[in-house]
Amino acid sequence: MEAIREGDRILFITERGKRYLIEVRRGRRFHSSEGYIDLDDVIGLPYGARIQTNTGSTWVAAKPLILDEVLNFPRITQIVYPKDLGYVILVSGVRCGSRVVEGGTGAGVLTTMLAYHVAPAGRVYSYDVEEDHLENAAKQLEKVGLREFVELKRGDLTKSIDESDVDAVILDIPTPWLAVANAKKALRDGGVLVSLSPTIEQVIETVEALRDEGFADIACVEILLRNLRVRRGMTRPEHLMHAHTVYIVTARKAYKLDEVAADETFKA
Amino acid sequence: MEAIREGDRILFITERGKRYLIEVRRGRRFHSSEGYIDLDDVIGLPYGARIQTNTGSTWVAAKPLILDEVLNFPRITQIVYPKDLGYVILVSGVRCGSRVVEGGTGAGVLTTMLAYHVAPAGRVYSYDVEEDHLENAAKQLEKVGLREFVELKRGDLTKSIDESDVDAVILDIPTPWLAVANAKKALRDGGVLVSLSPTIEQVIETVEALRDEGFADIACVEILLRNLRVRRGMTRPEHLMHAHTVYIVTARKAYKLDEVAADETFKA
Amino acid sequence: MEAIREGDRILFITERGKRYLIEVRRGRRFHSSEGYIDLDDVIGLPYGARIQTNTGSTWVAAKPLILDEVLNFPRITQIVYPKDLGYVILVSGVRCGSRVVEGGTGAGVLTTMLAYHVAPAGRVYSYDVEEDHLENAAKQLEKVGLREFVELKRGDLTKSIDESDVDAVILDIPTPWLAVANAKKALRDGGVLVSLSPTIEQVIETVEALRDEGFADIACVEILLRNLRVRRGMTRPEHLMHAHTVYIVTARKAYKLDEVAADETFKA
Amino acid sequence: MEAIREGDRILFITERGKRYLIEVRRGRRFHSSEGYIDLDDVIGLPYGARIQTNTGSTWVAAKPLILDEVLNFPRITQIVYPKDLGYVILVSGVRCGSRVVEGGTGAGVLTTMLAYHVAPAGRVYSYDVEEDHLENAAKQLEKVGLREFVELKRGDLTKSIDESDVDAVILDIPTPWLAVANAKKALRDGGVLVSLSPTIEQVIETVEALRDEGFADIACVEILLRNLRVRRGMTRPEHLMHAHTVYIVTARKAYKLDEVAADETFKA
Repeated sequence: MEAIREGDRILFITERGKRYLIEVRRGRRFHSSEGYIDLDDVIGLPYGARIQTNTGSTWVAAKPLILDEVLNFPRITQIVYPKDLGYVILVSGVRCGSRVVEGGTGAGVLTTMLAYHVAPAGRVYSYDVEEDHLENAAKQLEKVGLREFVELKRGDLTKSIDESDVDAVILDIPTPWLAVANAKKALRDGGVLVSLSPTIEQVIETVEALRDEGFADIACVEILLRNLRVRRGMTRPEHLMHAHTVYIVTARKAYKLDEVAADETFKA
Repeated sequence: MEAIREGDRILFITERGKRYLIEVRRGRRFHSSEGYIDLDDVIGLPYGARIQTNTGSTWVAAKPLILDEVLNFPRITQIVYPKDLGYVILVSGVRCGSRVVEGGTGAGVLTTMLAYHVAPAGRVYSYDVEEDHLENAAKQLEKVGLREFVELKRGDLTKSIDESDVDAVILDIPTPWLAVANAKKALRDGGVLVSLSPTIEQVIETVEALRDEGFADIACVEILLRNLRVRRGMTRPEHLMHAHTVYIVTARKAYKLDEVAADETFKA
Repeated sequence: MEAIREGDRILFITERGKRYLIEVRRGRRFHSSEGYIDLDDVIGLPYGARIQTNTGSTWVAAKPLILDEVLNFPRITQIVYPKDLGYVILVSGVRCGSRVVEGGTGAGVLTTMLAYHVAPAGRVYSYDVEEDHLENAAKQLEKVGLREFVELKRGDLTKSIDESDVDAVILDIPTPWLAVANAKKALRDGGVLVSLSPTIEQVIETVEALRDEGFADIACVEILLRNLRVRRGMTRPEHLMHAHTVYIVTARKAYKLDEVAADETFKA
Repeated sequence: MEAIREGDRILFITERGKRYLIEVRRGRRFHSSEGYIDLDDVIGLPYGARIQTNTGSTWVAAKPLILDEVLNFPRITQIVYPKDLGYVILVSGVRCGSRVVEGGTGAGVLTTMLAYHVAPAGRVYSYDVEEDHLENAAKQLEKVGLREFVELKRGDLTKSIDESDVDAVILDIPTPWLAVANAKKALRDGGVLVSLSPTIEQVIETVEALRDEGFADIACVEILLRNLRVRRGMTRPEHLMHAHTVYIVTARKAYKLDEVAADETFKA
């Protein structure tokens, strides 16, 4: 059993399905439209305990997952959604020990998920041209305990990438096609590029740039996630869904036919 | 630069888009309908090099990703597809160090992806009732170098789960609802249950069982992945797609309202 | 050219994409958040003319299609959406001259579309148990000039259907499976049954009832419609879409193996 | 009851779900991999009767719907699919009495569905540049009894459209944007243009052309249809679906702001 302690972050899931991600402080009372809970009453309970507000609404005091944390980040830019996050992690092959270049940092959602997966042995190099994006990301990463695994860098991947031999480059920028050549240089042999774009014109430019640079296994997908409302006798999909967030372009670093022979540095 | 060496596993991606995952052996010639390649010619090339068959078809000698490997496993059972794999990894929160119970092992695809993500500090406990599934999984895990992170167990999660305090339980069995109570006992506070089922009736039973056991944040999604064929002036989605693989049910371990008070072991 | 005249119904489509379906009256001024238009200025313009409000917003004075009309009906019940309406018309084979039984009338949207397609030679028999649904439908049908093609009937298709030899029976009721036997009796040989249901449990009951009654070619589909926002350089799907409205079950009247021989009335 | 007679067209739906659309001829035997049926035995049965082959497979002798007929046409070009056909009928507002220009005729599937809906009072003007498309369409229309409602014309909508004051123009041609100006001239005030295109680049060109010509209410959708396999205890969506056929662009004829005033012919 793991008891909730003062200073812990907890996720209240209310009876009506609202979510509140808060820090447990002694003497505090948490108010909502479904009544209040004294946080002192939560301390010592196991994570996952149910507790009632003064008005009788039954809540769960859940242990926040990293996904709860990132979905709670300030949305200072368009964020990457869970349906896309999972796919990016999967196809990039990112895991413990991976070295990943990412840009832009944006709201830090993807940055944090990458950090979560490369930790403790890997590193995320996250670029953004906006200083306040970097500052915000630093704060969010600090809060969830992943700050040490991320190098936040003021910079533009379409201009240059400092790193080399990285396992993956993840692009979430307006003109990804301009960063393709830099990404190729930064990637290790066998490395993967992933690019997220909302418009089809961005996708077309990016895919053609990847072809020009000799990338292999170029693909573009979009992912649709549909929620179901499951209750015996009343089961049906939810009425609304996200019809579109981003297209996901993936490719592997590869060499053009004559590129290897032409380059002296390729001698094994 | 990373050169291809004898004994390496490589993925040939042919000009027409076929994929061959092979081991590089000196003196061998790899034949296909697009011509042959002498594997001696591949040794020493960097991963990602392009090379031509005797008939002039240009192939890429790629470094296999873990996803290439699992999609190449013998399909002795229905496998879990990439669109679903990524989501499972994401929502389960599985990463380096996680301890995960999984069943059934089936073709070992999900087992291997879980192993890839928990390594090197975590562990997967994978159950199956079929001895030959376990043997096959052992062989596949060995091949991709992840055998040591998985404990393959002959057993049935609907009967019992040996482990406790695990971070996640992943169910891919015909009657997941019968394993819900066991999963609750096995999970740590804050742990996550994920269940994959092809039919809606399985989903309904499982969700109702999760409600009965007090699980929180119960959700069910289905994920659709659509490929786009991107080429300037000719861009469109592919004609066919997978309309359905599995529904994904997710839930967090939680306690019923009186469960905590009733249980002496819950004293912090 | 067809000029707008007093008494006509017109659809204003505003610069921001709002829609106002109104009747043109002399001396009236139509006010909106995008300014006002004097309806006298509209009279004599051709349908499709663009006109500016006093604040310079450019609107189109469009001729309402039947679809504009039905989407503007009071939504006294859940309506049938365009994506589903088109499919129902198609698979039912309903057209000029068809005789169709429908229930429930609900908000009258499907009733009106059916009337539009069976006119002037056919007839819709629309049942509802709620008197106010029938009254509302009568009013809406009157407004769009299709009242004469619809017989509105207080009744319950699960109890009985007065008509026989009809071309199609369209069910949009909570317990369609209870109306299947009546529908079979009402349908002509070769007739089609279409049933719309929001939940999967309703679908399962209905399909099993159709099997029991010997219906053939039983199918169930769901239709997803995605809007694209098309603008050169910025093209992408819309962010949100309807994930679910109803499942559409279709079947053809057929006889069980021994049913024909057993029934004397089947002698040709 | 409607008995099957010699010379009728019937649709056999076999036990395994195969479909055979044939003409009933005395003395003929219809052979299949599920056994044979003597057509003499079918004559006199009601439509919808079940009958067994010599090997005991139970078939239904169904009355073909127009949809069965068109899906059975020779696929000499890419056809329009049911999911899209229904939507085109709906949004075009085509029904009894409508006058519709269509091009290209292609395999005649959409032509026939339009004819089915405009009959008996309306007319379809179907253009194609290929003589053999027109000949094939003539044959198919003859077969299903709708020949008289269609004027098949050798011609190219991007060059000119002979008709005027038509209710709808339906484009299914490679360069629909080049036909937009002609379509505007051909349409009556309030008329509707629908354009079907497989690629997104075609859509972008077409939508921009529609904007340039002053069309209103321009929209683009794609329709996804998913089949469910419904059987108590085993219900799930089918595994495969069409991910893409065509994008459907719709618009209404409208005038640019100064177009009405500038044109003397617009005087009411």
